[in-house]
Amino acid sequence: LVDAERLWSDILATARFGAAGETGMNRLAGSVADGDVRRWFEAECRALGCTVEVDRIGNMFATYPGTDPCLPSIAVGSHLDTQPAGGRFDGILGVLAGVEILRILRASGRRLVHPFTVVNWTNEEGSRFAPAMMGSGVFCGVHALDAMSARTDKDGISVGEALEAIGYRGEHPPGHLPMAAYLELHIEQGPVLEAAGRAIGIVTGVQGLRWLDIRIKGTEAHAGAFPMTLRQDALVSAAKVIQVVEAVALKHSPGVGTVGYVHVAPNSRNVVPGEVCLEVDLRHPDEAGLMAMEAGIRDEVNRQVPGAAVSAVWRKAPVAFDTGLRGLVAQAAADIALPAMDIVSGAGHDAAHLAGQMPTAMVFIPSRDGLSHNAREFSSPQQCADGANALLRSVLRADEL
Amino acid sequence: LVDAERLWSDILATARFGAAGETGMNRLAGSVADGDVRRWFEAECRALGCTVEVDRIGNMFATYPGTDPCLPSIAVGSHLDTQPAGGRFDGILGVLAGVEILRILRASGRRLVHPFTVVNWTNEEGSRFAPAMMGSGVFCGVHALDAMSARTDKDGISVGEALEAIGYRGEHPPGHLPMAAYLELHIEQGPVLEAAGRAIGIVTGVQGLRWLDIRIKGTEAHAGAFPMTLRQDALVSAAKVIQVVEAVALKHSPGVGTVGYVHVAPNSRNVVPGEVCLEVDLRHPDEAGLMAMEAGIRDEVNRQVPGAAVSAVWRKAPVAFDTGLRGLVAQAAADIALPAMDIVSGAGHDAAHLAGQMPTAMVFIPSRDGLSHNAREFSSPQQCADGANALLRSVLRADEL
Ligand SMILES: NC(=O)NCCC(=O)O
Ligand SMILES: NC(=O)NCCC(=O)O
Repeated sequence: LVDAERLWSDILATARFGAAGETGMNRLAGSVADGDVRRWFEAECRALGCTVEVDRIGNMFATYPGTDPCLPSIAVGSHLDTQPAGGRFDGILGVLAGVEILRILRASGRRLVHPFTVVNWTNEEGSRFAPAMMGSGVFCGVHALDAMSARTDKDGISVGEALEAIGYRGEHPPGHLPMAAYLELHIEQGPVLEAAGRAIGIVTGVQGLRWLDIRIKGTEAHAGAFPMTLRQDALVSAAKVIQVVEAVALKHSPGVGTVGYVHVAPNSRNVVPGEVCLEVDLRHPDEAGLMAMEAGIRDEVNRQVPGAAVSAVWRKAPVAFDTGLRGLVAQAAADIALPAMDIVSGAGHDAAHLAGQMPTAMVFIPSRDGLSHNAREFSSPQQCADGANALLRSVLRADEL
Repeated sequence: LVDAERLWSDILATARFGAAGETGMNRLAGSVADGDVRRWFEAECRALGCTVEVDRIGNMFATYPGTDPCLPSIAVGSHLDTQPAGGRFDGILGVLAGVEILRILRASGRRLVHPFTVVNWTNEEGSRFAPAMMGSGVFCGVHALDAMSARTDKDGISVGEALEAIGYRGEHPPGHLPMAAYLELHIEQGPVLEAAGRAIGIVTGVQGLRWLDIRIKGTEAHAGAFPMTLRQDALVSAAKVIQVVEAVALKHSPGVGTVGYVHVAPNSRNVVPGEVCLEVDLRHPDEAGLMAMEAGIRDEVNRQVPGAAVSAVWRKAPVAFDTGLRGLVAQAAADIALPAMDIVSGAGHDAAHLAGQMPTAMVFIPSRDGLSHNAREFSSPQQCADGANALLRSVLRADEL
C-alpha cells in the first residue's frame, strides 16, 4: 500500500512551483515554473533509479527497469502543467502517484516483469497553447510534431521556443517508447463521485469535445458622441453569442458549453468595441450530441449575429476505454475494498489519446464540491491515497497478465 | 487666414509619434510617444517665441506675449494624448490649430493685446488612467492633484510616475495661469454636422457623464466536467449586464450607454469564468436623464444578476457654455462665411471643466462617417482649416473685447 503522508508531502512539495495564493497554482505549459517542477520530477525519478527520457514535444518518461528487458512498459502518468488559476491536484496527482509507486518499488527492492514508466505529458491544459492534451496527441501521432511545436501563445511565443527556454525540448522522436498498457489516475473535476459517496471512479470513457473560435467585427466609435441606433457594437453582439452557447448547451443536456476566454479591442471604456474574439468549449458524451451542439450554435449565431466568423479549431470524438483494463481496475478497487462506480469523464485527458494506441484505463477520485480549474480544488490525503492504491493494484495486476 | 497646408503638415508630423497602422494612433497619456509629441510641441512653441510652462499634473502652457503684460491670457487648447486605437485628429487638431495661430502671429509680427496661450491638457482620454479630462480637472480644482497623481493604470503605474518617466511632471501648481477666456477647437466625433452639411458647430454645451464599474463574481470550474445547472458563470451574468446597459440607453434616448472594457478571470477557454469586471460609460444631455439611466441600470442589474457590485467611479453634470462667447464664435464663423449650427457635444472635453472657471466656448468641425476613437477618424485639410479659421477669428474678436 502507498504511504499517504509521503504522497501528500510530494503534492505540497511540487505546489511550491508556480504557487498563486494559499492553494492556487499558475504553472502554464512551458513557463519557468513548469521548468522547475520538471527538474524536481527528473531529479526524484533519477534518485529512485530511473532513466529519464524527454521527447521533442517535451514529454518526460521516467522508466524503472523490469525483470524482462524485452517487454514494453506498463505506463502511468498525467501532467504537471496547470491552468493560470488552477489547483494542486489536476494532473499532478497522477504523476505523483506514479512517483509514489516508484518509491514503493525502490524501498521494497521489488521489480515488475515489465519496465514501469511514469510519464509527464506536455501541455495537457491547453490554456496557453491550443489544443489541450498536446504532448500525448503528438506521442500518439494524432498531431504532427512540427505543427504543434509552432503553435503560439497570445504573446507569439511558440511551444518549441518555450520548451527550449526551460530546457525540455528533448531529443527523442514522438512515440519512441513502447507501452503494453497505460493507466492514469486523476481527480474527477466534477461532482458525481462526491454526490454518490464513492472513493473510486472506473472511467468508461471521455466525452467528445469541440473548440470553436468566434470572431465578431463591429465599428469602433466614440462612446459619448456616436448615437446608439447607428452603432455596430461588437460586445453587444458577443453578449448574444455567450447566451446562445449557454442556451444550446442547456438544450443538449448532458452536454456542456462554455465561453471561457474573451478578447475585446480596443478595450477602452469610452470606445464602442470594434472587435471581440470568443473562445468556446463544447463537450458531449455522444458524437451526435456534439454535432448537434456545434450546428445549433452556428445556426443561432448566424441568425442573431450575421457576419460573425465561427471556426472549429479542435474536434475530438468521444473515447471508450478498454473493457479488459477497466475490469482489471474494478478488480483492483475491489481487492482493497474501495467503493467504486463507473463514470464518464467530463474533462479531457491524455489517456483519451493513448486509448487509440494501446489498452488504456483511468481511475478517478472525488473532487470537493466538484471544483477544478479553481484554486479551491481539493481532494483529501486519504482520497489521494485511495486513488494511488487503486492505481498501484491495477499496475500489479496488469504486470501479471 | 490660416495656412491649410501648413496645419495639415503639422497633423502628419505629430502623427508619427505613436503611429499604429496607416492612420491609427496609440499615444496613451504618459506613454513614451506622449513624451515625444510633448517635446515636439514644446520645441515648436519655443521656436515661435513662446515661454512654455508645465504644471504638476503635466499640463503644458505655451504663451506668446501680448502688448499688455498685465492682462490674463486668451487661451486655446486641447490634448495630444489618444485612445489605444484612436485617430490623428481627436484633441490634436485643437492644439495644432493653436500652433498655427502662433505661426501666423509670428510671421506677421502682430501681437494681441492679451497674452495668447496654447494649452496641451494631460490625459484627456481617460483610457489608461480614469477619469478622462484629468489635467484640466486638476487645473480647475475639480480634482485634487495628489489623488489624480496617484491614480494607476492596469499595470499599477501611477500618473505621477508616468509623467516623471517622460519628463513632464512640471513645477507649477495647478491653476497657476490666469485666463480671460478659453476656446477649444475639436472634431465632432459624431455624425451630426456631416449629416447637416455644416462646416462649423457652435457647441452649446457638453452632455453629462457617469462612469460605472461593475464587478461580477462567479465560481471557477472545469468547462468539461462541471454540470451546466450547477454553474455560477460570471461571463453569462456579464452578458446580461451588457444587454441591460444597451436596453437602458435605448430607452433613455438621446442618452447613450457603452460597455467598452471587459476583464475576465482567469480567461482560459476550458474554465468557467470566475470573475468579470465591466467598465461602463453613460451620457445624457440632462442630469435627470443621466440619473434615470444610472438608476435603471442598477435596478435591472440587481434583478438579473443579484450580487453584482455596481460602483460609480466618476460623475460629471452637463455643462452649458458661455452665451456671450458662443455668440462671438457664431459671429466669427459668419465673418468668414462658414455655414454653422448649434450642437451639443456628445463627447467630454477639457472645455467642460474650464467652463466652470471662465468664459468658455468650443468650435466643432465634421467627422467623416461620425467616426472617432477609431483609426479611420478623418476630417479633410479644408475642414480642419475651416475650424482653425473660426478659432482664429474668435481669438481676434475675444482679444478686442
Ligand atoms: N483534465 C483537464 O483538466 N484537462 C484539461 C483539458 C480539458 O479541458 O479537458
Ligand atoms: N473628446 C474625447 O474623445 N474625449 C474623451 C473623453 C470622453 O468623452 O470619453
